[in-house]
This record gives sequence, C-alpha cells and structure tokens, in this order.
Amino acid sequence: MEKPVFNHLVVLGVGLIGGSLALAAKKSGLVAKVTGWSRTQKTLDQALDLGVVDVVEQDLNSALDNADCIVVSTPTQFAESLIVEVIERVPSSTVITDVASVKANLVSAILEKYTDFPENVVLAHPIAGSEKSGVTAAIHNLFEKRNTVITPLESTSEEALHQVSKLWQGVGSDIITMPPEEHDKVLALTSHLPHILSYALVGQIVAKKNSDELFQFAGGGFRDFTRIAGSDPRMWREIALANKDALLACIKSYQEQLEIIKALLNDEQGDQIEFLFEKAKKGRDSYIQLLEDLEN
Amino acid sequence: MEKPVFNHLVVLGVGLIGGSLALAAKKSGLVAKVTGWSRTQKTLDQALDLGVVDVVEQDLNSALDNADCIVVSTPTQFAESLIVEVIERVPSSTVITDVASVKANLVSAILEKYTDFPENVVLAHPIAGSEKSGVTAAIHNLFEKRNTVITPLESTSEEALHQVSKLWQGVGSDIITMPPEEHDKVLALTSHLPHILSYALVGQIVAKKNSDELFQFAGGGFRDFTRIAGSDPRMWREIALANKDALLACIKSYQEQLEIIKALLNDEQGDQIEFLFEKAKKGRDSYIQLLEDLEN
Repeated sequence: MEKPVFNHLVVLGVGLIGGSLALAAKKSGLVAKVTGWSRTQKTLDQALDLGVVDVVEQDLNSALDNADCIVVSTPTQFAESLIVEVIERVPSSTVITDVASVKANLVSAILEKYTDFPENVVLAHPIAGSEKSGVTAAIHNLFEKRNTVITPLESTSEEALHQVSKLWQGVGSDIITMPPEEHDKVLALTSHLPHILSYALVGQIVAKKNSDELFQFAGGGFRDFTRIAGSDPRMWREIALANKDALLACIKSYQEQLEIIKALLNDEQGDQIEFLFEKAKKGRDSYIQLLEDLEN
Repeated sequence: MEKPVFNHLVVLGVGLIGGSLALAAKKSGLVAKVTGWSRTQKTLDQALDLGVVDVVEQDLNSALDNADCIVVSTPTQFAESLIVEVIERVPSSTVITDVASVKANLVSAILEKYTDFPENVVLAHPIAGSEKSGVTAAIHNLFEKRNTVITPLESTSEEALHQVSKLWQGVGSDIITMPPEEHDKVLALTSHLPHILSYALVGQIVAKKNSDELFQFAGGGFRDFTRIAGSDPRMWREIALANKDALLACIKSYQEQLEIIKALLNDEQGDQIEFLFEKAKKGRDSYIQLLEDLEN
C-alpha cells in the first residue's frame, strides 16, 4: 500500500473515469477517504452500493468540506462552470484537478475569472476510457499502464503538480506533461478525429434504407473500427465543440489524405497506393510495439 | 462428423483463408483429402508441418489432378488469371470456387474467355479474416458463425451451388446469396472503405515528424480503429484496385458526410451533431445485436 497522498479526495461526477479513479485510489491506499458528489441521486446510490466511494453528498458545499484534493470528473459540458465554482469555494491549499478530454476551454473559463491562473489547479487527462460510461462501468485498473497527460501552467505550484502526479502514478499511469494547447492538438488527432471518423462511417450506413442488411456484411474489421461509434453522443458532442478549432484542422488534413488516395485510386497508381498503406502499416506496427513496451 | 461433400479438395494458395478452410473442412469431415498448392515451397512446408493440408503440390497440373472441388484462395492479384487457367484445365464436373473479396473483376476475367459463364464456377466470399495473414495464421474456426456470400450467376449449376453452400455451411457459415456487382458495392462500404479510412488516419499521423510521440497519446479507441491499418498493404492495394469504382463512390459519399459534420461543427450546431452521433450509435448498437444473434 502507498502512503496516502491526500487524506480526503472528493470526486465531482462519479462516472466511468471519476468512479474508476476513486476505486483505484482507494485500492492503492493513495487516499484515506473518498467522497463522491453527483447531481443524480441514483448515481450516488450506485457509487455507494458498488463501494466506489466511502461517502456521498448531493450538496456541493458539503462535498467540498475538508477536501484535500478535488477531481472535477463530470461530463465536459459541466466541467467549465463547475471548476470555476470549485476554485471560488475552496481555499488555495486544496488541490483541484480534472480528467477532461479538452483543456484549452477550461483554461479559458478559469482565466475569465482569474487573471492569474490559480496555483492549486493542475489539469490532467488520463488516456484511458471505454465506449461504456457511468459508475457501473468503473473499474479499479482503468489507468494501469496508461499515459496520463498533465498540463501545468507557469503559475502552477510545484507541490500541487507533484501531488497530482503522485496520484496518477499511484493508480498505475505514466505521466506526460505538456501545455494545454498542445494537449488539445495532439488529442484532436489521436482521439477526437477517430471518433468523428467512426461516427461518420456508421452514419453513412444508417442513412441507407437497407442498413440492417448491410450490417450482415460487416466483419471483425468493421466491428473494431466502429467500436468508438458506440460512445456517448452527448459527451462527444461536447468534446468536439470544446476542441472545435483543433478538430476542424484535423478533419481538413484528413480530407486531404482522402483526396490523395482517391486520386491515386482513380489513376490506378498501385505502387503509390501500396506505399501509402505500407507506411501506415509500419506506423501502426510501431504503435503496437509502443503499447507492448508500456505493458512490460 | 459430416458426410464428405467432396472427396478431394484442392486449395490453391494456402494462406489465412485457404489454410483455415482446409483445416475446417478436414476437421468437420466435409472432405476426405485436401491438397495444397502454392508458388512458395516454404508455405507448402509449413502447411504440411501444421497439418493444414494432407498433400502438397508445387506443380499446378499435379495439384488439380482428380480434384472434386478447387478453391482459388491466392491473393487478389493472382486470382483473376489463376481461375481462368483452372477453368481451362479441369473438366466441367469439377466444382471451382474462390474466396476473393471482390467479385466483378473475376467475373469479367472469366467472361473475357467464356461467353457463357461456366456452370461449375461458384464464386464465394467468407466475411471473415484477420489483420494477420499467411498459413501460420490459419485456424479451424475462422468461419464459424460468420456469413459467407455466394454470388451465383444465371448459368451456375444448381448442384455446384448446393455443394459449395454445403461446404461453407459445414465449416460454420451462414450463406447469403446475391449478384456479384451487389456484393462488391456492399463490401466496398462495409469493408474496403473502413480499411482505406484506417490507413488514411495512420498515414496522417506518420506523415508528421513527431509521430512516435503522437502515438503515446493514442488510447484503446485508436488501437481498435486502426487495427485494420495493420493489414497486408499488397493485398489491400489489389482489393482497392479490383473494386475501384464502388470504392471511389463510397469515398465520395464519406467525404460528403465529413463535409456535413465539419459545417455543423464550424457553426457549433451542437444538437445536430449530437443527433448524427446518436443515429450512428444506435446503428452501431443494432449491428452488435445482430452479431450477438448470429453467435447464439
């Protein structure tokens, strides 16, 4: 068991990510007590029943009481206003962090209220997830052997950064630090764009009258390619909007890629098509090697 | 054990699909003897060592000798000329079939030689596979609970169609019959397009100088989305070229989908974005239901 990093961890929004972090932190001994807060009583009941948190609160002030670390892990659409509210309500000795997939919008929302970015706020994003959502999907090892990105600003306190890093390392993550804007650009390409592409493909099929019939001809490749099209539409709407500019740039680049492939195919440039595929396959193989190295 | 459908099955090209069919047919008792033919001695040695086939031949005439059914399961680029050659060499009492991902090019190649499409040729395509290839990847249950499309023509003999259907049913497949052109259009959308899209995404990343770094930010969604970008580049070049027209039409429709999403995102039309994602998610969920029904 690790020595506790925080005595009292408060998780705001006990879904897949918040719930899994609560479970993992408790299991590893990184925190002595976890309080869960949600707008939804049913979620809190489930969180208690499943042993995801120790205490539940539906009142935000009560939840924040005596917190050492607060994790904002609500859906993207609530995170902006909530994190600002939390900063207002707790002393600057309390560490505030989050798990959101997009960072620049949170930074902007905070900077609208505070000219100096608060030193106790350390934004973080674990690169882990599932097409499932909700507290019932929470698992204690979701972050094991995964990367977690932390996006400190110049004003961030070294101590708070250190503690948040310890928390994520304690639940099994490797830490990568980078500026928020860079995080958003990178994630637009490696996560947000693939979601759009997967939704778009299934969207193209369901727009056809015989979509049920078409699905009969979809094999394992299709199944894996479209797994992320099973993700929560509301959540991905919000992520797409929050990271609009970076995502639009990625879609545009992707369209250029498709134009190249279309032109090569139209001109039957077999060698060049194979060369493109070969480069992609090599990249994909090296990515898998990277994952395997991370596992070992 | 099933009663043999064919006494002597000859598999031309003992890769993932041909090898798996050989294994499955032997295991189920559908065939009494399987001969494997390949241009590559090493493949034949492996096929024998792994017990995938009973006998190997590197000479085509020797391989075809006394065949009751011949399965052309070479890569796409060799299948056209090989199937024509096989038709020339064997009596019309011998059933000839294949496993290729595209049908119209085979039909055209055959019709160039034969005004009447030979009655003993029954083209088939099992919707099963893997990003792995080669005889070492062959498994006996690759076709279990999968659909196999058979594309008979008007001239196809009922008896040959029945026997090829029995073969695929015997290895665990459900049979769907449809015209070759329709097969190619459907597969362009459900299989060939996703491969292009997956190659294109990884291609977009590897074109960047920091691609190794970018892969660190790719989670499980990316991994699944890009699994098919690990597929054999040569094979997919040939499939793309063989199904060029249908695939180009699919890419064009897909680009239109992306244009719609881009416009909605640019205008921050959150409700409409969510509506699109929601429709796709429902389609994806119903597809998974279909798979589960097929499994049970």
